[in-house]
Amino acid sequence: MLEGLRAKLLTTEVKSALVHKITHISMETDVLAENRHLAEHNHQKLHGSGVRSVDVMGTTGAGKTALIIKLSKLLMARGLRVAAIAGDVTGQDDYDRFEAAGVRAFNLNTGKECHLDAHLLDHALDHIDLKGFDFLFVENVGNLVCPADFPLGTDKRMVVISVTEGDDMVRKHPMIFQGADVAVINKMDLAEYMGIDVLRVKADYRKLSGGRELLPVSERTGEGLEALVEALLG
Amino acid sequence: MLEGLRAKLLTTEVKSALVHKITHISMETDVLAENRHLAEHNHQKLHGSGVRSVDVMGTTGAGKTALIIKLSKLLMARGLRVAAIAGDVTGQDDYDRFEAAGVRAFNLNTGKECHLDAHLLDHALDHIDLKGFDFLFVENVGNLVCPADFPLGTDKRMVVISVTEGDDMVRKHPMIFQGADVAVINKMDLAEYMGIDVLRVKADYRKLSGGRELLPVSERTGEGLEALVEALLG
Repeated sequence: MLEGLRAKLLTTEVKSALVHKITHISMETDVLAENRHLAEHNHQKLHGSGVRSVDVMGTTGAGKTALIIKLSKLLMARGLRVAAIAGDVTGQDDYDRFEAAGVRAFNLNTGKECHLDAHLLDHALDHIDLKGFDFLFVENVGNLVCPADFPLGTDKRMVVISVTEGDDMVRKHPMIFQGADVAVINKMDLAEYMGIDVLRVKADYRKLSGGRELLPVSERTGEGLEALVEALLG
Repeated sequence: MLEGLRAKLLTTEVKSALVHKITHISMETDVLAENRHLAEHNHQKLHGSGVRSVDVMGTTGAGKTALIIKLSKLLMARGLRVAAIAGDVTGQDDYDRFEAAGVRAFNLNTGKECHLDAHLLDHALDHIDLKGFDFLFVENVGNLVCPADFPLGTDKRMVVISVTEGDDMVRKHPMIFQGADVAVINKMDLAEYMGIDVLRVKADYRKLSGGRELLPVSERTGEGLEALVEALLG
């Protein structure tokens, strides 16, 4: 959005555009610096309470919520106390799904925003007794563009795509993959039916990330989930 | 993004925040008004050349590109000359897919933006000989949040979701569905496997849109595509 505003302002014929532009660039710097500052604050708050945390980013429909539920159960089976923050533009569908599945959840709506930010997470953390949990999932708003610029202060950032989205996702959205510590391709049970070239997606990610491996998983069959748990705890 | 910036500015402790905020709100108004103005300009340009057009919005992986290819072939079979603009953050994967499938395409990258806007489309149209076409698909950047605020000036706006995304998509993203003339749920061939309650999604959309029907289609099997062509030409 900021780049676009800038582009628009550069091309508008309104005479005051340059003044606006200068103001806007300084505001962008303010906002991103402010986010980094609050992210560091969140990290200290979570770490100080002994809570490991992961920002779960990914497309709408990649299966983030269902995956978090399965991962939560695996973590709980290891004796960890798990919570999930359900981040969405509006509504509480994901919150309801977490609670129905026995995962303690907190709802976080952005209103109109296409991403969470450190400020929103800071507010959410005020309502969570962090001493009661060992692991926190923060489910971001579903898309591969907006969350990239706004780290939240979690220990790790994970990006989730699925085989139903085609084999070009990494190439199309390099920024979010570059900024992630863990990357996952979900719904592997549908890979054959979809005719997707998973090796190509893996090669794209390996090249972009300097040698990291994209983790193939299926929330439905359980494929790859233990390996993913290890990656999140590692 | 703008709402978030505003929220952040309202809560920051920087003393000059209020000044920034006032500047920012006036800039938001400028940008959206400028977009509407350019959208009207695009509409006149397209209409004046006898080109029907549709803004194709939807999640990443909903199958927008594949659907546009199938729809293009059905339109071409009716004697219409079809072109597609492939809008993406970066790269030309969709452009390559259109061209490989025999659909004349034009590539349009946003750089960092999570949506096309009327200004970008205006520039793209400068490079297209509109007299050579009867129908133009404009494939927007994949997500259900950002494109909602930025009409491009096309005759229609279509939103595409798929059964792999769950049954809560309309409830989670009311704005983009409210602003669309045509709404489609794709990959119906996977509905049973996914165990999705399509009737619930349809009911959500009917309620939100004041009685419109969500069109179930499958790009793969061809289900519903002729009805969708009629809706786009209607």
